[in-house]
Amino acid sequence: MTIIYSLDLIGTFAFALSGALVAERKTFDIFGVVIIAFVTAVGGGMLRDVLIDAHPINWIGDLNYMWIIASAVVVMYLFKSKIAPWAKTFFIFDTIGLGVFTLIGVEKALNYGLNPVPAVIMGMITACFGGVIRDVLTNQVPLIFKKEIYASACLLGGIVYLLGRLMDLPENIQAISAVGVVILIRSVSVKYKLELPKIKGDLLSRKS
Amino acid sequence: MTIIYSLDLIGTFAFALSGALVAERKTFDIFGVVIIAFVTAVGGGMLRDVLIDAHPINWIGDLNYMWIIASAVVVMYLFKSKIAPWAKTFFIFDTIGLGVFTLIGVEKALNYGLNPVPAVIMGMITACFGGVIRDVLTNQVPLIFKKEIYASACLLGGIVYLLGRLMDLPENIQAISAVGVVILIRSVSVKYKLELPKIKGDLLSRKS
Amino acid sequence: MTIIYSLDLIGTFAFALSGALVAERKTFDIFGVVIIAFVTAVGGGMLRDVLIDAHPINWIGDLNYMWIIASAVVVMYLFKSKIAPWAKTFFIFDTIGLGVFTLIGVEKALNYGLNPVPAVIMGMITACFGGVIRDVLTNQVPLIFKKEIYASACLLGGIVYLLGRLMDLPENIQAISAVGVVILIRSVSVKYKLELPKIKGDLLSRKS
Repeated sequence: MTIIYSLDLIGTFAFALSGALVAERKTFDIFGVVIIAFVTAVGGGMLRDVLIDAHPINWIGDLNYMWIIASAVVVMYLFKSKIAPWAKTFFIFDTIGLGVFTLIGVEKALNYGLNPVPAVIMGMITACFGGVIRDVLTNQVPLIFKKEIYASACLLGGIVYLLGRLMDLPENIQAISAVGVVILIRSVSVKYKLELPKIKGDLLSRKS
Repeated sequence: MTIIYSLDLIGTFAFALSGALVAERKTFDIFGVVIIAFVTAVGGGMLRDVLIDAHPINWIGDLNYMWIIASAVVVMYLFKSKIAPWAKTFFIFDTIGLGVFTLIGVEKALNYGLNPVPAVIMGMITACFGGVIRDVLTNQVPLIFKKEIYASACLLGGIVYLLGRLMDLPENIQAISAVGVVILIRSVSVKYKLELPKIKGDLLSRKS
Repeated sequence: MTIIYSLDLIGTFAFALSGALVAERKTFDIFGVVIIAFVTAVGGGMLRDVLIDAHPINWIGDLNYMWIIASAVVVMYLFKSKIAPWAKTFFIFDTIGLGVFTLIGVEKALNYGLNPVPAVIMGMITACFGGVIRDVLTNQVPLIFKKEIYASACLLGGIVYLLGRLMDLPENIQAISAVGVVILIRSVSVKYKLELPKIKGDLLSRKS
């Protein structure tokens, strides 16, 4: 689907840009910035492809990812002090990326014969583990383990996609509803500062 | 072998539970807890399968691992303040897991045509690298690099298994002796607080 | 090519020795020292082989790597207080390793059908990502992201190799020029303390 592919590239750009900004703030040199932009953008899909044995893996099989990442790095250096006012736009792109990456991940995993449950997990890995690899390489506890509803949005989006397939809905509807759920949950959760609960004490007792 | 498979699942449960407890103490949210339980339990086998090209990898090919991990997370949340008195029981399960994972890892590696030396290493990776991935994701220096005799127990267990195979012992004896060596070394070393030496100074000179 | 293979083993020894020294200074036990020596020496090639689906991966397919790494660890423990005067020699071996690993990585990637751009990246990964994995496992921000011209030397060496192939130069010349470029850039940059720039402010504006 051409629209999905376009959205995939837009999401890649947004993820690469956010990775480049993180690395730049950590005073990495150009090489470090490129690597962090790279893993943020394609790390999740790369991990998915290695785990499901889909070769050539994403950025080896399609060079467009690399040109997109390179241009995101250039844009970051050219405009970094002027990016702040665009934060909302980038948030939208980033969130679209999250949804589309989830969709692509689940679909590819199903095409490679995975069961629905691991396929949904692959959708989440595709969307979220670029950020995990970025955080590991910059020596931080991955953000999504602590306070992002990010990953849950992707898991839910993946489940919606599965249901759409199961109910044999038209492909467009499947895609739009899955991506839409991710975008909706992410937007609402950021707007209202929702977080997943940290469960205190035992679930079975009042004390402790 | 059905017994090995049962012990594998018990070990998976014990590893997942210990991972969930570590993540919970770090105030990760539910998602973070699940991920850390997951990588602690199946991360070693996953790494092994990627390295020896065994697809589908462990948790993709057998969904039972995921149900076990999910139930370990539920048990952790339900009973976390009551787990302390069970520490000994869990230590036993954890140690059984260590032995069985080693055995499974070496056997699978040999079945995939690896030489004995890399096969023993694969046994150690299966048993120990879930913990390494857990420590990397929680931003700590992996415990086993510093003070656990853990890894050495696995390497020795793997070698015992190899010897058993070489001597053409009955399969049961091979398995029991390999798992037994791991359990024995781990238990004795914890009881007597043994550690691998940190070699100070040159081996060739008295000074420095 | 036998010379390339010899240089590969020399580079593996130098990388393993440097990894072992890093781990020893961090008071890792013997097991930790061996693992860090191991990933420093063969981690880059291992990552390359997993990403391009080249099985058996480097250290599984050729046991010599393991004997080399083991002997490097032994040498480290035997002579660690006497290694300082040899620093220059090891620097030379290390730099030869860097060049040869790059060459081998690019060549193998091309043989596996990769396009030139990802192939050059694979050369860099082969030469540099053992160090990245070492730094992640020892809980540090990877050195090459911050101040090493290391990676750039490898990328340039890879490009020189590609050009040599494109121009159909004799194989020896291709190899020597590629390895030579890496060695030259690394030596000059260390001698004159060159670093990649950290770009301050926007490229488009004087201010900020």
